Amino acid sequence: MAAAEIKALVFDVFGTVVDWRTSIAKESKEMLEAKGFAIDWYSFADSWRAKYQPSMKRVRTGQRGFVRLDILHMENLIEVLNEFEITGLNPKELDHLNRAWHRLEPWPDSISGLKRLKKRFIIGTMSNGNVALMVNMAKHTGLPWDVILGAEPAQAYKPDSKTYKTGVDWLGLTSSEVLMCAAHNHDLIAAAGEGLKTAFISRPTEYGINQDKDIEAEHEFDFVAREMNDLAEQLGC
Amino acid sequence: MAAAEIKALVFDVFGTVVDWRTSIAKESKEMLEAKGFAIDWYSFADSWRAKYQPSMKRVRTGQRGFVRLDILHMENLIEVLNEFEITGLNPKELDHLNRAWHRLEPWPDSISGLKRLKKRFIIGTMSNGNVALMVNMAKHTGLPWDVILGAEPAQAYKPDSKTYKTGVDWLGLTSSEVLMCAAHNHDLIAAAGEGLKTAFISRPTEYGINQDKDIEAEHEFDFVAREMNDLAEQLGC
Repeated sequence: MAAAEIKALVFDVFGTVVDWRTSIAKESKEMLEAKGFAIDWYSFADSWRAKYQPSMKRVRTGQRGFVRLDILHMENLIEVLNEFEITGLNPKELDHLNRAWHRLEPWPDSISGLKRLKKRFIIGTMSNGNVALMVNMAKHTGLPWDVILGAEPAQAYKPDSKTYKTGVDWLGLTSSEVLMCAAHNHDLIAAAGEGLKTAFISRPTEYGINQDKDIEAEHEFDFVAREMNDLAEQLGC
Repeated sequence: MAAAEIKALVFDVFGTVVDWRTSIAKESKEMLEAKGFAIDWYSFADSWRAKYQPSMKRVRTGQRGFVRLDILHMENLIEVLNEFEITGLNPKELDHLNRAWHRLEPWPDSISGLKRLKKRFIIGTMSNGNVALMVNMAKHTGLPWDVILGAEPAQAYKPDSKTYKTGVDWLGLTSSEVLMCAAHNHDLIAAAGEGLKTAFISRPTEYGINQDKDIEAEHEFDFVAREMNDLAEQLGC
């Protein structure tokens, strides 16, 4: 394994670096329970997230032009609020709740692992989250990114090849010098298709204890890590 | 002055954050003196830099499509080597010398000042340098950017309004929430034209002791600072 060739690590963020499900359930509960709504908040978070891929698919397939994820999140939030019969939020409250995605908390190993990796490599985001979302999240939690890449810079949502290619191009590197790190098999397969190296980081409870996909690496990735510090260890950091 | 409204600071880099002239003269001398060339290396640096604005102008005016600054720097390097009758460099040496722009050293106050500012604000680049140049420079010197914005993300060179506008848009802010910081009057005037707030940072020896422009703020900017820590002080950091 030629770790020596790697110059930059780029990361999927939702699920790989941050625990969106716990954060979204917690923030939704905090805001909405005070207004008298009593539901299963994990179910609310899961339902909001379930609309994520279909909403990006409409962009990927050209049904609509590129819009940043904040906009898709808001459209999906309005739908999911309707489904859970939650009403009466004013625009400011809607915006605050939508921006819960800007305040997601990292997995316990993410920041320590990224700090180790940052000493030796360029570390960047390769997320479908928009730039403001990534920057605000980093400021909120202390994620030490060197560069924000991903969907908004490329104006294309992963697994569109343009997302990975634009990131590699902007780093001035060849694709084999870039290691894509994610907890999701399909993301890594798409990155490998563009020539990037791949690291699977296991997040078996991203969707809760009954998670039924991405429990483990399903392909021959270059690295398979239990968590971020394990990846740092394997890369000699 | 409503510093309270400011959420992000974006910086011109060449001259404002780093001392390109000393770094380029030093690196050119180190490589080329060993090959037997004896010239005024500051004059070499100045001549290389003098081709910077004309080369970007051809992009701004539509004479050619957008190409990143690394490419313009290389074209300009080949010209300036010819002018100084320096011959015999192989492609690897040319590339190394061209990447001296990725290794520019900061002014003595830049890193300490930026670290103070980063605690309270988002800090980003708003440079005509390309993303790889900015990221490599930051890794080389320890510049603590939160986000890389500027010409390559916008596919437009300052003072094209698109450069500033794209940065503000990606940050998800209004232009009056963003403070453009630069040592160059024309850059700040263009940013102010797009509604950004402005901070002049004095760099009276960017072009050496006989510098004849940008010695001081020539307009009513929101802040005028002696150096980076003075700006941090004025912003309450």
